[in-house]
Amino acid sequence: MKRDKRRILIIGGVAGGASCAARARRLCEKCEIVLFDRGPYVSFANCGLPYYVGDIISSEEKLLVATPQLFKAYFNIEVRTEAETVSIDRSKREITVRDLKTGRTYKEPYDALVVSTGARAIRPPLPGIDLPGIFVLRTIPDSRQIRGAVENASHAVVVGGGYVGLEMAENLVRRGLSVTVVEMADQVMPPLDPEMASYVAHHIRANGVTLRLGGGVEAFHERPGGGLTVTTSSGEKIDTDIVILGIGVRPESGLAKDAGLELGQSGGIRVDDRMQTSDPSIWAVGDVVEVRDVVTGVWQLLALAGPANRQGRIAAASIHVALDPDASRSIAGIRFRGVQATSVCGLFGLTVATTGASEKALNRAGIENYEKVYLHPGNHVSYYPGAKPIHIKLLFSRQDGRILGAQAIGEADVARRIDVIAMAIQLGGTVYDLEESELCYAPQFGAAKDPVNLAGMIAANHLRGGLPLADWEELDGVQAQIVDVRTEAEYESGHIPGARNIPLEELRRRLNELPKDSETWLVCQVGQRAYYATRLLLQNGFNVRNLSGGMQTYATFGHTEG
Amino acid sequence: MKRDKRRILIIGGVAGGASCAARARRLCEKCEIVLFDRGPYVSFANCGLPYYVGDIISSEEKLLVATPQLFKAYFNIEVRTEAETVSIDRSKREITVRDLKTGRTYKEPYDALVVSTGARAIRPPLPGIDLPGIFVLRTIPDSRQIRGAVENASHAVVVGGGYVGLEMAENLVRRGLSVTVVEMADQVMPPLDPEMASYVAHHIRANGVTLRLGGGVEAFHERPGGGLTVTTSSGEKIDTDIVILGIGVRPESGLAKDAGLELGQSGGIRVDDRMQTSDPSIWAVGDVVEVRDVVTGVWQLLALAGPANRQGRIAAASIHVALDPDASRSIAGIRFRGVQATSVCGLFGLTVATTGASEKALNRAGIENYEKVYLHPGNHVSYYPGAKPIHIKLLFSRQDGRILGAQAIGEADVARRIDVIAMAIQLGGTVYDLEESELCYAPQFGAAKDPVNLAGMIAANHLRGGLPLADWEELDGVQAQIVDVRTEAEYESGHIPGARNIPLEELRRRLNELPKDSETWLVCQVGQRAYYATRLLLQNGFNVRNLSGGMQTYATFGHTEG
Repeated sequence: MKRDKRRILIIGGVAGGASCAARARRLCEKCEIVLFDRGPYVSFANCGLPYYVGDIISSEEKLLVATPQLFKAYFNIEVRTEAETVSIDRSKREITVRDLKTGRTYKEPYDALVVSTGARAIRPPLPGIDLPGIFVLRTIPDSRQIRGAVENASHAVVVGGGYVGLEMAENLVRRGLSVTVVEMADQVMPPLDPEMASYVAHHIRANGVTLRLGGGVEAFHERPGGGLTVTTSSGEKIDTDIVILGIGVRPESGLAKDAGLELGQSGGIRVDDRMQTSDPSIWAVGDVVEVRDVVTGVWQLLALAGPANRQGRIAAASIHVALDPDASRSIAGIRFRGVQATSVCGLFGLTVATTGASEKALNRAGIENYEKVYLHPGNHVSYYPGAKPIHIKLLFSRQDGRILGAQAIGEADVARRIDVIAMAIQLGGTVYDLEESELCYAPQFGAAKDPVNLAGMIAANHLRGGLPLADWEELDGVQAQIVDVRTEAEYESGHIPGARNIPLEELRRRLNELPKDSETWLVCQVGQRAYYATRLLLQNGFNVRNLSGGMQTYATFGHTEG
Repeated sequence: MKRDKRRILIIGGVAGGASCAARARRLCEKCEIVLFDRGPYVSFANCGLPYYVGDIISSEEKLLVATPQLFKAYFNIEVRTEAETVSIDRSKREITVRDLKTGRTYKEPYDALVVSTGARAIRPPLPGIDLPGIFVLRTIPDSRQIRGAVENASHAVVVGGGYVGLEMAENLVRRGLSVTVVEMADQVMPPLDPEMASYVAHHIRANGVTLRLGGGVEAFHERPGGGLTVTTSSGEKIDTDIVILGIGVRPESGLAKDAGLELGQSGGIRVDDRMQTSDPSIWAVGDVVEVRDVVTGVWQLLALAGPANRQGRIAAASIHVALDPDASRSIAGIRFRGVQATSVCGLFGLTVATTGASEKALNRAGIENYEKVYLHPGNHVSYYPGAKPIHIKLLFSRQDGRILGAQAIGEADVARRIDVIAMAIQLGGTVYDLEESELCYAPQFGAAKDPVNLAGMIAANHLRGGLPLADWEELDGVQAQIVDVRTEAEYESGHIPGARNIPLEELRRRLNELPKDSETWLVCQVGQRAYYATRLLLQNGFNVRNLSGGMQTYATFGHTEG
């Protein structure tokens, strides 16, 4: 090295890149740190953009988490915006940067380089995709454009029913627009399993959103009088004023690829657990890298701010150790542990949260040795006013009860329960641990048996053999006798075709009505009374199974809704 | 045994007892199970009583979680209310019961006996303690009496500033009364450390409650015109209409003691990890038992519904295994793991939650090898409207970073963060685990660096040597130079006496103003800028420490409030 100071260059200044830059300074006061970004802003609140469109966040300034001035004043970090890195010369350890304001290109040498170029919104090559009025939402200028277009619009089509698409749908409704969401898959919210996603579909429809599932967009056309016509794969033509594309993102890994860095199959940059790429002088963080799922072991893309921030910190520590032989040994062991895909989304007052693997993800990864339970506890005790149900699906290992994943949906305290389970997954916890958790309880905050406890209890009862579970997917055409142990009035209000009604309180004296030679599947409203009935029948020699989550789960399998 | 059926008798039918009875039935359909309670109700919502007084819960029926009729119909469990167990004959394995309705006494034999007699409110032997208008709150009849008295009252004195006392204060204010709380200790909320309790004191005063700390009640007198005068140990005389005693509870262990069962030093029944007492045919659960704290190892009393419910289930499993050699071996290993004292309380919109040990509890247990950090993050990102600070104190092992306890106070999402830390404590987690947690984040739900992450990051930075912490308790009279790195305007609005102001953004060019030979303590508003300054100065050879939590924590040590 001929330079006095070690130079750390960072390409991309949002989330991971910004976090890395600040941490690098805290670890090395004497390094030279320069942050380049192609856009006009660094460190902006990407996740807040839909709410800026919805005018919940009222000004652009609020979206600027840290300005170039603050980076300079607090951290002595030079930020260059509208500066696009066009190539990396690994042999010379230098990058070529184009100043987008002047068109000038120049070279900058580095000792350590961080690629945090993020991801770009997918624009599928459909007819008419470049027509005016079709937007993506990744940057502050994007959101500014959409805000402007919304002013004169009365209808919007959102393409894609994932988190961003649905957040946009909510915010457009908030702005007074009629909204149609077009989603190619048979469900919204890909991180959820389909039966859980049905709660979300029901809720957004109840809030006025038109939802078209199971078909994508084929083309966009201009309407003569202004506006657009969206043609779907089912042949439907939807007239609209604006279109928002929310079909996902692709890693901006072209720069890395051109430089010969190893990419994963998903197209993201492959990094080790110190966020180091295949070049020992180059690190990568954020949406541009592939990450390993801690539950399934699968490498995947996951565009989330939390992991990006952690990765930025870890890359900074790794760089510090690599550049400075005298660096504190105490940070040398810091490793990125992978992701568990914890996420949350708020939609029209409903909270949807997940952590760990979905059943779909387990199946994709070839993991078969799992079990699942459903439950619908209140967010707090029912005797305190205002309790709201939380619909929970818990996935766990059949072998040892290790927690594999959880999905929860409800109006209150949903993120809390998923966060607790996220921590349990992180530390290798089992359903037996959830059963014995000691969590916050007062009447307005929970229950002596918290939803998390209940999930653990049901799962543990099952694994111990005390609560055999039936398989909802096998309900149609099952040979078993289905017994509904709710009251007669509940039964009359709607029941599984073919089910017979024996209320729990009559079951002991009516045991002789049930055949012992065939299987009996028990169901109630949410699963609790059916559990009591399961115990009663099991100990009387019956061959029984419990339909986990009861009629509330039955509805999610598409049996009661069109 | 001469009887056909094994008999399980349960003394006391709230929380632990009720939970045990129902679980016992689920495990043993053929056992005879009888539940005795001295009072008129079983399985009532003890924790809801203050809110019934406050009329948030509007009817008594809502407080009845399970009636005797339901126990019979669902579980075939016989419930005898107003049936007081007066003695246990261990050699004959029978109890003597008095029917309080008829006065008749009778004996009942048992194979397994469960003592869940709970705890009674302490009524200290003060002059006038038995005057009319002085109430405790443990039962539905208690709350009915208080509701009646409130109708004609305009002022109340609550004796005791613990959870129940303060919940009562809130609910009496809700009913329109003026309330004075008299607490013998120098702080409210004994599970909190004093500096954290100061937030609570400030908040309840701001909501109109008069708070007298550091002195108890000496006597009660009748006033000539009606009502009472409460005389405190400081000599103050407070005229009032009603008095609520909320000074805590004592285990109802007299029955067990008379029967020769082993008690602990606290007066609670000593049990093993299967909830078995010193008599192998007798189990005990709930507020009447002593429990072991998983963090400190100390045996103590802890009257909480969550642990009581878990204990009830575990006792039922243990009984089942003891009575039935053929019992499923899968439940034989179920053990009570002890308590970690997780608790939560809502007061005038403020949530106060704790888990694990307080600093006081660590000191009492002789545990010295701990560290602490303070922080004040928002419940969610500041750019999304409505963010509220959460004041957090995290205690952890100096040796290995294991989490020892956490206290959190704020208006929103407080229980969530404590629950996550509770799970981490349960699974032996460290501050390094908190640092790397992947928790729910969307703008309205949290931050890419969640408060839990931040707590872990600050603590881990400290343990790795990157963030030396100063000791708030040593601030008065310290020799160190205190440097306040906030802006000049912030500094002028209030600062630590003797502190000098060098804003963070000027620090790099003003390093020569600081002496290197003596220690420098850095402070800012919440600790973040001072952390940046700490890193900057450390790497320039200064001897620095950070005042954790900044000026917001400074205020809690009584420096800015009278």
